[in-house]
Amino acid sequence: MENKQIPKATAKRLPLYYRYLKYLFTSGKKKVSSADLSEAVKIDSATIRRDFSYFGALGKRGYGYDVEDLMNFFSRQLNQEQLTNVALVGVGHIGRALLNYNFQGQNSIRISAGFDVKEDLVNSILEGVPIYHIDELEEQVKAQQFEVAIIAVPGDYSQDITDRLVEAGIKGIMNFTPMRLSVPDSVRILNIDLSNELQSLIYFVQYSDSILDDDKV
Amino acid sequence: MENKQIPKATAKRLPLYYRYLKYLFTSGKKKVSSADLSEAVKIDSATIRRDFSYFGALGKRGYGYDVEDLMNFFSRQLNQEQLTNVALVGVGHIGRALLNYNFQGQNSIRISAGFDVKEDLVNSILEGVPIYHIDELEEQVKAQQFEVAIIAVPGDYSQDITDRLVEAGIKGIMNFTPMRLSVPDSVRILNIDLSNELQSLIYFVQYSDSILDDDKV
Repeated sequence: MENKQIPKATAKRLPLYYRYLKYLFTSGKKKVSSADLSEAVKIDSATIRRDFSYFGALGKRGYGYDVEDLMNFFSRQLNQEQLTNVALVGVGHIGRALLNYNFQGQNSIRISAGFDVKEDLVNSILEGVPIYHIDELEEQVKAQQFEVAIIAVPGDYSQDITDRLVEAGIKGIMNFTPMRLSVPDSVRILNIDLSNELQSLIYFVQYSDSILDDDKV
Repeated sequence: MENKQIPKATAKRLPLYYRYLKYLFTSGKKKVSSADLSEAVKIDSATIRRDFSYFGALGKRGYGYDVEDLMNFFSRQLNQEQLTNVALVGVGHIGRALLNYNFQGQNSIRISAGFDVKEDLVNSILEGVPIYHIDELEEQVKAQQFEVAIIAVPGDYSQDITDRLVEAGIKGIMNFTPMRLSVPDSVRILNIDLSNELQSLIYFVQYSDSILDDDKV
């Protein structure tokens, strides 16, 4: 695994496989075929087999996969045994919805600190999570050893916040603003741009005949 | 355009190009080079040139692109002149944040109806948007000729709601639940699975050396 290069698209599907395997395990299932897995996660079985091939032989052809073994394998891959604490910068409407949601059902991820400037929020505890003043950003990121942060501030502040986070040691940013952020190559950005996504969907619906279905997920 | 097949990845980048061109136009810029465009939208210029090539000659090599022409071209592609009304099913925390956000700055998209079962929401107007009882779903989707809907209900209800939406004529669904939905081939699904996305980001941060950077956006 350490030596093998995994395509980004494969890496993105791992949580999906893991979640379904956990569901099967909880339901008492012992074996799963790649056809059943394919039907449940809506990814064609050739892609699933190719994804799994990056991790070596995970099952025997014709016998299906052992649910518990496979679940445990992906659990280790995804570091499920260890809680990853995440910082949330910006506690507006989106930020609050994220706090409330707090990645339930993903036992391994938790927003454990929020940052904002609003007087009525700062130094309070919201949905069980302490909200700090943005002035304390660097100090708390270092003290709590955050590596991943979510940015849900107004777009105009996003690059400044990003620079401060990177300087403080953040390695991955989930960006809910519509801005594209500049970061060093060592930092990962995941853009969740809801306007763009919805606009693309509308475009797909309107021009469905002229879009190549080259990407399944 | 009608005869040409556009890759899905290209279609997904169009809103990004359009938004930046609109910004340049508003700032009074007349010309933009593909290098400047590349720097602003964080997409390499080879990809930009390839994307643009699907739409024929949009600029002359070495002269850069005419900002207004290009903006107008993408505006037509993205059907910006016409408002697309979108239905929101489920007005919980995520739903409310979406209502508040309501794709501001995208003049062409608006959530114009919400659906829920909660007594205190039904028949009220929230952020300027009427909230109907879920029992009125089919009737309102047909009456208001919705083609695109956002699902932000608890996961257990998602497939049932999807079936009802599809039956009523919906062609595109933005899915905020963690469930994978079954729909006919003619219906487009866009999954916004925040847990999965964040888990992938954490995976990327932890194994950054072993992920192939095969996908830029």
